Amino acid sequence: MIRKVLIANRGEIALRVISACKEMGIRTVAVYSEADRNSLHVRFADEAICIGPPKSADSYLNVPAVISAAEIAGADAVHPGYGLLSENANFAEVCRASNIKFIGPPPEVTRMMGEKSTARQTMKKAKVPILPGSDGIVATEGEALEWAQSVKYPVILKAVAGGGGRGMRICRSKEELPALYQQASTEALNAFGNGELYMEKFIERPRHIEFQVLADEHGNVMSLGERECSIQRRHQKLIEEAPSLQITPKQREEMGKVIKRSLKDIGYWNAGTIEFLMDEDGQIYFIEMNTRIQVEHCVTEMVTGVDLVKAQLRIASGEKLSDIVPKQPEIIGHAIECRINAEHPEKFTPSPGKITVYNVPGGNGVRVDTAQYAEGVVPQYYDSLIAKLICHGKDREEAMNKMQRALSQFVVQGIHTTIPLHEKIFADAEFRSGAFDTKFMERFLEREKDRLKAEAK
Amino acid sequence: MIRKVLIANRGEIALRVISACKEMGIRTVAVYSEADRNSLHVRFADEAICIGPPKSADSYLNVPAVISAAEIAGADAVHPGYGLLSENANFAEVCRASNIKFIGPPPEVTRMMGEKSTARQTMKKAKVPILPGSDGIVATEGEALEWAQSVKYPVILKAVAGGGGRGMRICRSKEELPALYQQASTEALNAFGNGELYMEKFIERPRHIEFQVLADEHGNVMSLGERECSIQRRHQKLIEEAPSLQITPKQREEMGKVIKRSLKDIGYWNAGTIEFLMDEDGQIYFIEMNTRIQVEHCVTEMVTGVDLVKAQLRIASGEKLSDIVPKQPEIIGHAIECRINAEHPEKFTPSPGKITVYNVPGGNGVRVDTAQYAEGVVPQYYDSLIAKLICHGKDREEAMNKMQRALSQFVVQGIHTTIPLHEKIFADAEFRSGAFDTKFMERFLEREKDRLKAEAK
Repeated sequence: MIRKVLIANRGEIALRVISACKEMGIRTVAVYSEADRNSLHVRFADEAICIGPPKSADSYLNVPAVISAAEIAGADAVHPGYGLLSENANFAEVCRASNIKFIGPPPEVTRMMGEKSTARQTMKKAKVPILPGSDGIVATEGEALEWAQSVKYPVILKAVAGGGGRGMRICRSKEELPALYQQASTEALNAFGNGELYMEKFIERPRHIEFQVLADEHGNVMSLGERECSIQRRHQKLIEEAPSLQITPKQREEMGKVIKRSLKDIGYWNAGTIEFLMDEDGQIYFIEMNTRIQVEHCVTEMVTGVDLVKAQLRIASGEKLSDIVPKQPEIIGHAIECRINAEHPEKFTPSPGKITVYNVPGGNGVRVDTAQYAEGVVPQYYDSLIAKLICHGKDREEAMNKMQRALSQFVVQGIHTTIPLHEKIFADAEFRSGAFDTKFMERFLEREKDRLKAEAK
Repeated sequence: MIRKVLIANRGEIALRVISACKEMGIRTVAVYSEADRNSLHVRFADEAICIGPPKSADSYLNVPAVISAAEIAGADAVHPGYGLLSENANFAEVCRASNIKFIGPPPEVTRMMGEKSTARQTMKKAKVPILPGSDGIVATEGEALEWAQSVKYPVILKAVAGGGGRGMRICRSKEELPALYQQASTEALNAFGNGELYMEKFIERPRHIEFQVLADEHGNVMSLGERECSIQRRHQKLIEEAPSLQITPKQREEMGKVIKRSLKDIGYWNAGTIEFLMDEDGQIYFIEMNTRIQVEHCVTEMVTGVDLVKAQLRIASGEKLSDIVPKQPEIIGHAIECRINAEHPEKFTPSPGKITVYNVPGGNGVRVDTAQYAEGVVPQYYDSLIAKLICHGKDREEAMNKMQRALSQFVVQGIHTTIPLHEKIFADAEFRSGAFDTKFMERFLEREKDRLKAEAK
């Protein structure tokens, strides 16, 4: 069993890991930058070591500093949280070389899944559905027509040498394909000196759906169901839910089997998330794997009753999954998470500074994961997440109503936060219907702009 | 459906009810005394009406003031919370006469259950086990011996005219009964001019166990299992748990049936709690019924997933229990509640005043019900409860460990609180074993005194 864990992270996730360790009787070592001296993760850990100046590169991303801290404190394991060093295979290797347990998958697997095309090939081999692609050059219009026919329209033509949208065309029917092929090829030739094209299936309105997995070091894998994470702005998730209204119990079970087989194939262990896009027909396609705990892990915890961070710690201690989660958990109720960021709720500009008032909501079905407090400071150096507000209800409707109530009782003064943005989203008819996709925020912000214009008149 | 509720209470329970209403789309009216002007229940209600000076008698207990506020605001229902007017049948009658729905049982039932001996007789008739008593005078030693034989020793002899412990003897065997009978009778005669005695079964080490019930206005009743509330000081509960380790699933089911039948007999509706004492053999005996929501309702919510306050509101709206809680909920995991009081943790003296720092714990499985905040004031006029810290784990061990972690992250400055007391209790071997009774706190405080003495040496 692990006895002492160094938490190589900051903010709410550092406190989350410290809390899990405390509840398990494991000692904790916090590391912190000079900007985080007064942080709660420092206060609530058993020990704390300053590892450098504010900038992440000089502190939280400084591998030798983190390893030295672990050695000085006599930590026998490191929990990397999310972000920062969590998907750095090199760091995991240094941990291994230093005889410190890295709480995550083996570095070889992290590296493999970090390389997008390798991950895609690996998953394809393991029979995980991947977004159909031509997997190589489509040399002629005829070949393109044939391939498009095989996957159904729409498809997207992309320049092999390309990037930045050039030499790229979305094609919605066989009639328009020949002309678009020529345009894309010519554009690519002009831009990159290479007119070769490849193709992929194009999803007009994709949903982002991801599956949480746990795997032990003995080859046992469990899928803990999915999360709906389509509410994103510029690829940053804002709101996550579990379960997804789009996934039937049967589909969940089938995906569970596919995932189980594939992760066994790769030799994966610890917690991880497999991300998919879902098309309008409910088909899902692998996009990437995150080989760490995720920000939104809490919604899965709320509907399954499984403590994912404790599971990580027990897996890293060599325990068997069957001892940690004895049977496939039922999905109970519905959970939603709002990421509360220190940002202007309309301009999305960062809003670091001192928090003067900080009243977090509580009560039945409300969970708050935060390391902030009144008189605390949000430094300018790190990501802007200051709290996760998670609500659990018997169904999505109750969870949404609970969220609206909780948001109205979440009082933060001194800095801007995204609380008012979330309040507007939870009053939005499209969001409430559940029938949305990853383009939701674009439409929502357009509607907001129109509304403000109309109000100004 | 109820549209607008006046909450005739203050503090955490007022905020609890307001939150439930908000989540259901019901408008809320807070009432407050002059001392509670800046309270969160005032801030978070849709409307708020000042009903008088600080003293409860002049404000929260002032029936005409509360009724006027409801009429002025156009509230169609009143939620009384716990304490204050919640078990005042007269208030419920005035509500009825004013055409305002009282969210609780009918006043006739409240009155009946408020009268101890009537409640006892009513429950006896409904075949609920009650503490065996001679139900009348035991005229001779012989009668006393006979009665004691029928219920097993120990028994207690009590003066019919008595009180304050005089004319009272605990009797542990038939050998000592004759002498004790004479002593008690003589003492009673000398003290009250009446030597007549009656008898009851005596429980040396009782546990306090109570059952939560819900009943609709259509004659349907459901028991939601029990709570263990033996950790008390001077009859004030400090820590409550659900489920009780002493109650088997079979016993729970059987008690459920008994309770169902009895409450149907009485014509009970809305939420209520039936309190029992459990003897060393696991036999339980009715002591009293609380005809309202209780402080410790949260632990039942955590293990059943039923929102009891929402259920109260829906029952009062005339809904059927089968629509509110479609099936008997399973008991999932274990929940424990600590009452955090504004009191000195050793002297138990009240500690009103201004809170300077208030950091509530959060994270997985932690619920905080509170209406306090940093810069908030604890008035001297009311009970000292400032927060309920509730932890839910997969079993009692995990719930206890979570509580220790959460207590260590609950920071309150400016006033004294019972947080340090709870920290000591959760480290106590007897408490952790689960093998305790209502005398626990006496023994625990004795141990603490000894420990402090030993430390002082």
